Amino acid sequence: MPSEAAPFLNPPSLLDHVRPQALALPESGIVEVMNYGRQREGMIPLWAGEGDLPTPAFISEAATRSLAAGETFYTWQRGIPELRAAIARYMAGLYGIADDPERYFVTGSGMQAIQIALALTLAAGDEILIPSPAWPNAAAAAEVIGAHPVYVPFSFDETRGFWLDLDQLESAVTPRTRVIFINSPANPTGFVASHDTLRGVLDIARRHGLWIVADEIYGRFYYEGGEGGLAPSFHDVMEPEDRLLFVQTFSKNWAMTGWRLGWIEAHPVLGDVLENLIQYSTSGVAAFMQRAGIAALDRGESFVAHQIERARRGRDILAEGLATSNRVRFARPPGAFYMFFGVEGEHDMRALAMKLVDEARIGLAPGTAFGPGGESYIRLCFARGEAQMAEATDRLVRWLKA
Amino acid sequence: MPSEAAPFLNPPSLLDHVRPQALALPESGIVEVMNYGRQREGMIPLWAGEGDLPTPAFISEAATRSLAAGETFYTWQRGIPELRAAIARYMAGLYGIADDPERYFVTGSGMQAIQIALALTLAAGDEILIPSPAWPNAAAAAEVIGAHPVYVPFSFDETRGFWLDLDQLESAVTPRTRVIFINSPANPTGFVASHDTLRGVLDIARRHGLWIVADEIYGRFYYEGGEGGLAPSFHDVMEPEDRLLFVQTFSKNWAMTGWRLGWIEAHPVLGDVLENLIQYSTSGVAAFMQRAGIAALDRGESFVAHQIERARRGRDILAEGLATSNRVRFARPPGAFYMFFGVEGEHDMRALAMKLVDEARIGLAPGTAFGPGGESYIRLCFARGEAQMAEATDRLVRWLKA
Repeated sequence: MPSEAAPFLNPPSLLDHVRPQALALPESGIVEVMNYGRQREGMIPLWAGEGDLPTPAFISEAATRSLAAGETFYTWQRGIPELRAAIARYMAGLYGIADDPERYFVTGSGMQAIQIALALTLAAGDEILIPSPAWPNAAAAAEVIGAHPVYVPFSFDETRGFWLDLDQLESAVTPRTRVIFINSPANPTGFVASHDTLRGVLDIARRHGLWIVADEIYGRFYYEGGEGGLAPSFHDVMEPEDRLLFVQTFSKNWAMTGWRLGWIEAHPVLGDVLENLIQYSTSGVAAFMQRAGIAALDRGESFVAHQIERARRGRDILAEGLATSNRVRFARPPGAFYMFFGVEGEHDMRALAMKLVDEARIGLAPGTAFGPGGESYIRLCFARGEAQMAEATDRLVRWLKA
Repeated sequence: MPSEAAPFLNPPSLLDHVRPQALALPESGIVEVMNYGRQREGMIPLWAGEGDLPTPAFISEAATRSLAAGETFYTWQRGIPELRAAIARYMAGLYGIADDPERYFVTGSGMQAIQIALALTLAAGDEILIPSPAWPNAAAAAEVIGAHPVYVPFSFDETRGFWLDLDQLESAVTPRTRVIFINSPANPTGFVASHDTLRGVLDIARRHGLWIVADEIYGRFYYEGGEGGLAPSFHDVMEPEDRLLFVQTFSKNWAMTGWRLGWIEAHPVLGDVLENLIQYSTSGVAAFMQRAGIAALDRGESFVAHQIERARRGRDILAEGLATSNRVRFARPPGAFYMFFGVEGEHDMRALAMKLVDEARIGLAPGTAFGPGGESYIRLCFARGEAQMAEATDRLVRWLKA
């Protein structure tokens, strides 16, 4: 019997027929640790890129009202006009750019915004430049397409933190390069590109005919800009016809990580192409989710300010704690809400993350999850309240000193 | 000045750098007509694949409760365990298959289920067989990947309706073929594969080492099966190790078109690959949406029965009306909720759809939107209440006779 049934009893036979690019995708190293520790008692979870606040009620209630009103039918593929208008107002107010709803395309997460931006620009065999270490999902989304991420190492020193060498970036350009992916402020490094760096990247893109996919989702989590300061943005240095696609999300500013709601900003001439890519990917976003987005944009400013201030204090509490341990290599990050640090004597960061779950009841994300250059680091998300950040810092520092 | 600024003043320059596969994507011919007529007074919209009922309150309220409880954080990439368990129970009850939550992967729409199923199976240059006319989005999703849809024509006669010739299907297999996409009951044709046809497709797939992507989302909208009858399903004829991926959606059964919630059913050995493809596409679905899915599955049976009965009556009202016009070529569809018919003397079905918006205030979808073989048809969705279906039928028949 086994011999007869063999073709159907060997599960790997199914895997043998999976497209190699899909089979080769890395498991998210963050998800692996989260799955390991998700249900432990008393854990302080600092592994994911999210804070501890649920979505504010005024945002959730906008969705609830829409649902109760029966907005449960198919809707515009590009997003409902009211949300596109709200995004345009918000972005105009923030960056002093034109208030033009035709530039904005609602997506089912910032991740989907990246997926679609890459589907617009990359074919199988093409290359995308990614400064590394980096949040791994952009590279993985390129790999799903059959394109190749080419990593450009960030430089690091404890005074300057992480920085990007433009000569190194340009020297990585090949005839197959199509895209430069720039995340600033950056996850996990806290890197923030200066205006000079952004201009330099733009010059490289223009010289070589490349697209820039700009991930500025942490643009407001910038701690060097003074009151209400924004991190430098490509909006400040670009021309209208530059080949730039911005990817955005509601996740971070408005504590909406679980919602899966974002947008793409692009030249309106790309509208039909983007609409098609949305249509053939998820076919749009629930209208009731979009109503929540409008509430967030129109009425969320004090919440955003509160979150930024919390993150700044979280960063400072953590940095002060880490400085008391002589085992940690770090710089205080100017932006985003992660500390990406090395620990003397610890070389296997995946094992370290597991140990910290087991022994210190804190959840961190191993640097191995963030591509080349991340292997000797571990990431901690500090977008949390003061008491919990103090407790987490205490647990970490005690573990480090033990 | 113009000469200097020229490189930045020519909008098509941006389009010139879009990846050719993305640029070549067809605009959805359905969306085109919807956008044309969406805001007209007094329209009866029968263009989209959705009924006129909003999502039942007990489903929406499950989402509302979850939102109010603060379920707004990142969650499991494969779907929350409770929803995967609910899907498994539901499918086991419906098809008499094993109750195994590990077979189910929650997606942000049936469309995303297709996108991910194709990302798992197709690379650039590969071929996918699609009986045609067909809902265009599976073919378009293949084109986004750089794969090529190969259309196998349905046969049609007014007695038998649409049917699939298995010899024609097999003769379309080439060394590049990787997938057969089978939608049954089918949109837009109403085609329902018999068990013999399903076995025949499975034999072809086995002989040539192909995947089957089975879209049985209309499986319960089957009018020849008696009380509670289900359309024939690959579940009835497959072996566990067959290379089958099922794509599913909450849209049709539970009037949740606008939600964007679906699932993939696959052998559990594919779980890690599917989790990765979800992670790098939209990174999961909002937990509060998933709570609504649980309510739908656990408590939605009487609503589903009501919807199916309404669609059956809508079909019959329409078929009786069309029979009084001598200009219409059609067969009463055994499944799904579309009438796909030809009109004597009308050759440009896109123009016909526009005329019906303007002159009869009914919204239909031109057959040109459904690929090769669809050019001489137009689609009408009859999943609506009796009064509105009678009015729509009346408007259509009067227009046909005018």
